[in-house]
Amino acid sequence: MSSPEVSEIRVRVNYSETDQMGVVYHARYLVWLDIARTEHLRRSGMSYRDLEAAGLRLVVAEAALRYRQPARYDDPILVRCWVRALASRRVEFGYAVQHAEAGRLLATARTALLALSPAMTPTRLPDAVRSVLCAIPDPVRLNLTDA
Amino acid sequence: MSSPEVSEIRVRVNYSETDQMGVVYHARYLVWLDIARTEHLRRSGMSYRDLEAAGLRLVVAEAALRYRQPARYDDPILVRCWVRALASRRVEFGYAVQHAEAGRLLATARTALLALSPAMTPTRLPDAVRSVLCAIPDPVRLNLTDA
Amino acid sequence: MSSPEVSEIRVRVNYSETDQMGVVYHARYLVWLDIARTEHLRRSGMSYRDLEAAGLRLVVAEAALRYRQPARYDDPILVRCWVRALASRRVEFGYAVQHAEAGRLLATARTALLALSPAMTPTRLPDAVRSVLCAIPDPVRLNLTDA
Amino acid sequence: MSSPEVSEIRVRVNYSETDQMGVVYHARYLVWLDIARTEHLRRSGMSYRDLEAAGLRLVVAEAALRYRQPARYDDPILVRCWVRALASRRVEFGYAVQHAEAGRLLATARTALLALSPAMTPTRLPDAVRSVLCAIPDPVRLNLTDA
Repeated sequence: MSSPEVSEIRVRVNYSETDQMGVVYHARYLVWLDIARTEHLRRSGMSYRDLEAAGLRLVVAEAALRYRQPARYDDPILVRCWVRALASRRVEFGYAVQHAEAGRLLATARTALLALSPAMTPTRLPDAVRSVLCAIPDPVRLNLTDA
Repeated sequence: MSSPEVSEIRVRVNYSETDQMGVVYHARYLVWLDIARTEHLRRSGMSYRDLEAAGLRLVVAEAALRYRQPARYDDPILVRCWVRALASRRVEFGYAVQHAEAGRLLATARTALLALSPAMTPTRLPDAVRSVLCAIPDPVRLNLTDA
Repeated sequence: MSSPEVSEIRVRVNYSETDQMGVVYHARYLVWLDIARTEHLRRSGMSYRDLEAAGLRLVVAEAALRYRQPARYDDPILVRCWVRALASRRVEFGYAVQHAEAGRLLATARTALLALSPAMTPTRLPDAVRSVLCAIPDPVRLNLTDA
Repeated sequence: MSSPEVSEIRVRVNYSETDQMGVVYHARYLVWLDIARTEHLRRSGMSYRDLEAAGLRLVVAEAALRYRQPARYDDPILVRCWVRALASRRVEFGYAVQHAEAGRLLATARTALLALSPAMTPTRLPDAVRSVLCAIPDPVRLNLTDA
């Protein structure tokens, strides 16, 4: 998982992210994925802020997550992110969430994003975006079951 | 979708749930599903608070969502919830998120929950829980693609 | 606290709002205050959605909260809200957060909001807004200390 | 503001933190303050995780914030944190939230925390904690008005 096509971000679990079970509340993982995706774009040479200012919106159309082991308060977390599929109007990202020190896999996930115009109608991903995103085979088995 | 096995909750979109695209941020839907699931248990005669006090934890092991149309600030939202599969240690819920007045479908989702002991090890769903939950065929096509 | 100038909303504590101390995380109260304020405006005959569509933004410029007793998972919560001061460009709201059944006071708070134009510059509160908001003496001692 | 008694953390505004006004939702600042406070303790030689494991709870009893300028999506944020008052059962922190590059002040705040036992009753701050925390005069005017 060390190819340049897989980016990494680190976060530390804040108290606000825990719930009374003493683990990270499951919805928070979607925010970590968002942080990872934003940095993946940045490392690919794009700022999502600039893309949006230029009139492109990338909206989450599908999300699937498998929670394997709990993350706990103050844990250092590593999120790996990559592009797993790319089409004219759609890009799909894969993610592996790990304990940054122990290395154990906490969750795997994928999200599919659609390109929309400011009027929220489907549009093509600009060539400048498509050309720098590179879909790769999942470096980790996501083990997401179908519906 | 009006059988007793399908419960309904209503929420109104708060400003905190919107993002700068002017729509509800995608992670918030998981919270709405949680509210719906909690009320589904309550209407089935169980309080999750009581279940947890009695030593049972139901933790989200899988989640999958398809976002179809955006929810917007101040929109009245209706979430329908049902049990779609029930096993000895696992229960899977289905959800349909709709605009409460216009009726249009905003999102569909499923979450799979595992029964854990307070020590966070797998355990069986108590008979008292299994006996009141009733799995039904999805009243709405979820259209969740596989991984 | 039963005058028409004091409005009430009810929420039930969701699992997402708890933290590992087993109580509601303190930042969530600001969201409950937002829900209460929005409903106070609605009951005064205004929809904040409409105000914003008409070009007015009310932004939180100050917030102060005193937490007295913890709220817990599944607790029914009552938030009372009123206008405590009104000026040409500023409106200040007071809040009392209570356990809806036991009645005990959980928190008191105030927020000051400024009227801004869509360009985020200070503007006057429209007369139509000022005329329906009525400042009243605090029905509950807020006990907010100064800085 | 560069004395060792003032710690600094950096965060970058994520999409989930924005609202439809295109700025960071006001409740999120409380989470940034929490992150800053946790790191301030860590740099003072304590891990709040360890303190809590040892039976101490620090709970927010008061919070006051003044919002001066909006933070926006993808902005790099710097939060400075210091102890402004220390008593046997209570510690008060001060905060300055700034744009990390432009330097402009976005918000100032204070929070007062009480020491509680695991049974949530008031207790003394352990000497080991008090001895490493050092109250200093506010390095920035907080400009928090009273109630």
